[in-house]
Amino acid sequence: MLIGMVFGNGYGSQAGAWRMPGVDPTGFTNFDTLVRYAQLAERGKFQFLFMPDFPALRADIATDAQQLNIEPMMTLAAVARGTERIGLVATGSSTFSEPFNLARQFKALDLMSHGRAGWNAVPTSDPMVAANFGRALPPRFEKYERLHEFVQIVQGLWGSWEQGAWLHDQVSGRFADPAKIKPVNLRGRHLATSGPLPLPPSEQGQPVIFQAGGGDQGLEVAGRYASGVTGAVFTMEDARAQRMALRDAAERAGRDPDEIKFFAGLMTTIAPNRRAALDRRIAMSGFSFEPRVGYLGQMLGLALDSAQLGEPLTKAQLAAARPSRQDLRSTYALKVASEGWSLRDVLAHGVIDYHPMVVGPVVEAADHMQTWFEAGAADGFWLCPDVYEDGLPPLVDDLVPILQERGLFHRDYQGATLRDHLGVPAQYGRDPRLQ
Amino acid sequence: MLIGMVFGNGYGSQAGAWRMPGVDPTGFTNFDTLVRYAQLAERGKFQFLFMPDFPALRADIATDAQQLNIEPMMTLAAVARGTERIGLVATGSSTFSEPFNLARQFKALDLMSHGRAGWNAVPTSDPMVAANFGRALPPRFEKYERLHEFVQIVQGLWGSWEQGAWLHDQVSGRFADPAKIKPVNLRGRHLATSGPLPLPPSEQGQPVIFQAGGGDQGLEVAGRYASGVTGAVFTMEDARAQRMALRDAAERAGRDPDEIKFFAGLMTTIAPNRRAALDRRIAMSGFSFEPRVGYLGQMLGLALDSAQLGEPLTKAQLAAARPSRQDLRSTYALKVASEGWSLRDVLAHGVIDYHPMVVGPVVEAADHMQTWFEAGAADGFWLCPDVYEDGLPPLVDDLVPILQERGLFHRDYQGATLRDHLGVPAQYGRDPRLQ
Repeated sequence: MLIGMVFGNGYGSQAGAWRMPGVDPTGFTNFDTLVRYAQLAERGKFQFLFMPDFPALRADIATDAQQLNIEPMMTLAAVARGTERIGLVATGSSTFSEPFNLARQFKALDLMSHGRAGWNAVPTSDPMVAANFGRALPPRFEKYERLHEFVQIVQGLWGSWEQGAWLHDQVSGRFADPAKIKPVNLRGRHLATSGPLPLPPSEQGQPVIFQAGGGDQGLEVAGRYASGVTGAVFTMEDARAQRMALRDAAERAGRDPDEIKFFAGLMTTIAPNRRAALDRRIAMSGFSFEPRVGYLGQMLGLALDSAQLGEPLTKAQLAAARPSRQDLRSTYALKVASEGWSLRDVLAHGVIDYHPMVVGPVVEAADHMQTWFEAGAADGFWLCPDVYEDGLPPLVDDLVPILQERGLFHRDYQGATLRDHLGVPAQYGRDPRLQ
Repeated sequence: MLIGMVFGNGYGSQAGAWRMPGVDPTGFTNFDTLVRYAQLAERGKFQFLFMPDFPALRADIATDAQQLNIEPMMTLAAVARGTERIGLVATGSSTFSEPFNLARQFKALDLMSHGRAGWNAVPTSDPMVAANFGRALPPRFEKYERLHEFVQIVQGLWGSWEQGAWLHDQVSGRFADPAKIKPVNLRGRHLATSGPLPLPPSEQGQPVIFQAGGGDQGLEVAGRYASGVTGAVFTMEDARAQRMALRDAAERAGRDPDEIKFFAGLMTTIAPNRRAALDRRIAMSGFSFEPRVGYLGQMLGLALDSAQLGEPLTKAQLAAARPSRQDLRSTYALKVASEGWSLRDVLAHGVIDYHPMVVGPVVEAADHMQTWFEAGAADGFWLCPDVYEDGLPPLVDDLVPILQERGLFHRDYQGATLRDHLGVPAQYGRDPRLQ
């Protein structure tokens, strides 16, 4: 089993994490704090940190922290210098960046981390982001066409120095072997480059490609290029289906499906018991429960009012409730509601969060991960702790030992590079399928 | 007097620096080595490091190191984490990057360095670079039009959070004050953004703008936006003229000319005496003397052959020599040649290098700097040591104390930010002239 951790804004996954007791209120811009959390994840032997990205200001900045990281590449540069083993995966948009610049920065990260870099290659879909770049969003088809070209150009640039091309031999005075440095010369409909990149290979050859897109087009991109996919899945059945679809896509692209690892998200709020965990969760997201009651009602097929927030569903409501087929999370929401929790507590269970959520003792997280892993629903997980400061230590100090004890998780890093950690082969030179 | 240092490839300014004794042959990708050199410059109380950029592979990679840094932003992120006071200035192309991405990364650098970042805003003129980005170079006029738009958008994004906008007040639960966060909404012919940037101000408000372009268009950009200009000047007269033109441009733009600092380049090869310094210089650039003899001849109005490399000019040649009016360096070249040095030694004096070069004892560098500074030819210098490993320590340990003793250079950093070091005011919010 592999473990990644989402590495966000310096506070944690919950919007109110920034104001919890003991949390550094300047964590968003405090790189000492960011590096300290990365070091903590490394102490837990996590295979990688994963940075989503959203280059625009969130609307509710008055009370909630900007959800994502200040700037992924600068943050990972700092983390690379402050850690030794953990992999470093950042999202980089194929829609709003230049492939040469992106290839160069990720390769530099790969070199400075001694082979621990990964690039999550995604198109951008948000009109607010597009406006920051002064353009309208391209149509979906075009975005994916550009993504294919972008990845091929980036891989071409990364591979433009073959293994052994950099000699730096002071005795002979030979700095590099020009015969092993090739131009790229790719030209598509949207993008082109001549190359080569002026950077030698890293200890893992070149960075690992991740993908997090959705739909058939995202699947095709992942199947062709990715070694890791971070999924957004709520049920084990959905996760297994997505993982299988991904493996099929890899095979269609002529690859060994074991070279693509599928990661299911898991949000955690850990406390000794359910009640304490729910209270913890409520304390860090107190501003945002009322507006969610209406949607909870839709999930349950009921007209609910936020006045009922402190009360459970009535017997009549429970009898009338029908889980919505539009939202895979509805069945779980009804199960929790049936246990008699107040609507606030139902929501605090994370029933409308982006990923499954464990709100309770740490063993529940271990059980969840073991069940999904053994059912073939995931090769690993990307963990989203509620608050790094005091929500990450239980994962490192309690969850990991349980998983190790059960023989599910490694006791230490075996190799040095992210490719070692993921069990995917080093890649030098250009992908032969792209030449 | 202010001092910056060019921060290049991890070896030094001379192409053969990488193979000199004691030099780390992997310095190009070894961030420990890069950070160590930055720390050394900081020990010398230099005001800033300056990173030129060239995003393409140089042709003579077989024997010479890639001349410039592996990737300026990732390098400065590492340096920011490894230093406390020195300013960090990187070149970023306005031709081949997205203003939102560039603004975000420099602002992140400014935050992680606690107000020490600067951006050298330049258009790109090299067709090899353009080919790496899959495009032809735009016409010069258009490049500068885009540069103006680019700088205004970047400054707008940097200023989109006013001073005090970021509250992070855990007691009241107020993360930011939305009334102090403004959209940018700039749209030009080439570029646009809505903004705001999701990043708060740094300790100096926002990064410092540098410029290094040439010609009237570069001058206008510098006059309007820059606080520092790194010039390429060979004679004191030329430097003084450029500095005065720059100050005039600032006044035309309605600014106090003292807010723009002009830096003259100075290359150094330091040794106890001239002969030892010339030998040092020859040892680190031995591959490249022969092809330069022909150009030296053009400078002197003579037809010279590389067979004469080890010999001085003959009396007949000296009598016939006339310094070329096309190249300001020719008068100095003839002066050196007249002293009876071999052609190799004449070239080793740096007579056709990009900047004036001191090849000799360290006091000659101090004298050069004092003379130019007192003549109003520069507010400071950007030093280009031949080899960082053993060519930077004499600047830190010998040159700086001489300048301090003469009352020309500060004994320690007075402030914390790059704006403090340069004596230019902090800037919060947007520049009122751009609203």
